[in-house]
Amino acid sequence: MNRLEQQFQFALEVDKEKRIKRQTYCSDGVTLENDAEHAWHAALMAILLSEYANEPFDVLKTVTMLLIHDIVEIDAGDTYAYDDAGIATQTEREQKAAQRIYHLLPEDQARKLLALWQEFEAGRSPEARFAKVMDKVQSIMLNAATDGRAWQEHNVKLSKILDRNAKTPEGSQSLWDYMLQQFILPNVEKGRIQDDRI
Amino acid sequence: MNRLEQQFQFALEVDKEKRIKRQTYCSDGVTLENDAEHAWHAALMAILLSEYANEPFDVLKTVTMLLIHDIVEIDAGDTYAYDDAGIATQTEREQKAAQRIYHLLPEDQARKLLALWQEFEAGRSPEARFAKVMDKVQSIMLNAATDGRAWQEHNVKLSKILDRNAKTPEGSQSLWDYMLQQFILPNVEKGRIQDDRI
Repeated sequence: MNRLEQQFQFALEVDKEKRIKRQTYCSDGVTLENDAEHAWHAALMAILLSEYANEPFDVLKTVTMLLIHDIVEIDAGDTYAYDDAGIATQTEREQKAAQRIYHLLPEDQARKLLALWQEFEAGRSPEARFAKVMDKVQSIMLNAATDGRAWQEHNVKLSKILDRNAKTPEGSQSLWDYMLQQFILPNVEKGRIQDDRI
Repeated sequence: MNRLEQQFQFALEVDKEKRIKRQTYCSDGVTLENDAEHAWHAALMAILLSEYANEPFDVLKTVTMLLIHDIVEIDAGDTYAYDDAGIATQTEREQKAAQRIYHLLPEDQARKLLALWQEFEAGRSPEARFAKVMDKVQSIMLNAATDGRAWQEHNVKLSKILDRNAKTPEGSQSLWDYMLQQFILPNVEKGRIQDDRI
């Protein structure tokens, strides 16, 4: 198989991301979002909101991370952010998936995209830190816009959201402040997020 | 409304793109693709296939064009590539939609994204030429992968596909050659695309 055939093989394989449902409702409040839609939305938001990053970063690199960040879920499935049992086996399942799927590409591209996905997962570069803010704020925005339906269905506690977002201010303090004040705390007040503060 | 509120208002509005169905089947062969999924797929393919552009181009600019290129369809709807009646009114409907939707953003971003969308539509920069190749090849790849179902349902003629792709070789000669040989002509041979050559 030649280089271009390998690239199209990968391009066609990732189409399956459109079948992976997440636990977030789209703004219509009834349709569960899929991974491809989420990746598109988060990548576009990275371009729109880049001015709020704490530090300078390479926008194309962050956008690329966001476009690919859930490809592993084609094999590993979506692990809900507040599913502790799923999270315990998530790393192993996703690493295996990454090896299979990225290696459909020519070797140089496979290496490059695998490294980029791992950089995203590690969250220790300016690009990964901002990508992770987008990954979070995109779904929190939708949860807030749909009257907290996903939070209510999963009985999500405030402490869990704060825990999952412990590093969000490292990517963007101003976006974290906004998310907390505009999207999270009003839904605690309304009882859609369980208030487990002492 | 402050700047960040305007940006989130736009980010939430564009969520509606997930509701706009296209006339292309996803690789499962049964689900019609939506605009958000298509934009994600085409943007990712631009990154994967950038080496095949006829001329150097700014990848982030092309990716941004692709992420936003169908936002106007939130108001204007999807106009099928081979629907002549729809195409006659498409420009006016889409220009009106662009004015409403992009102007949800702060003025500087509205101007910038509107100009970028218009540059894509005009197709006269290296970035727009390559973006248009991705817009085309993404759906032609899926049509071929689903045994030409969409082509058959719409009785698409070869001359129409060639006409719609008249400028595709200007963006990438090598990708056009590949599309023609691997995706289009085999489906003419199989009768899934109507052969109207004399």
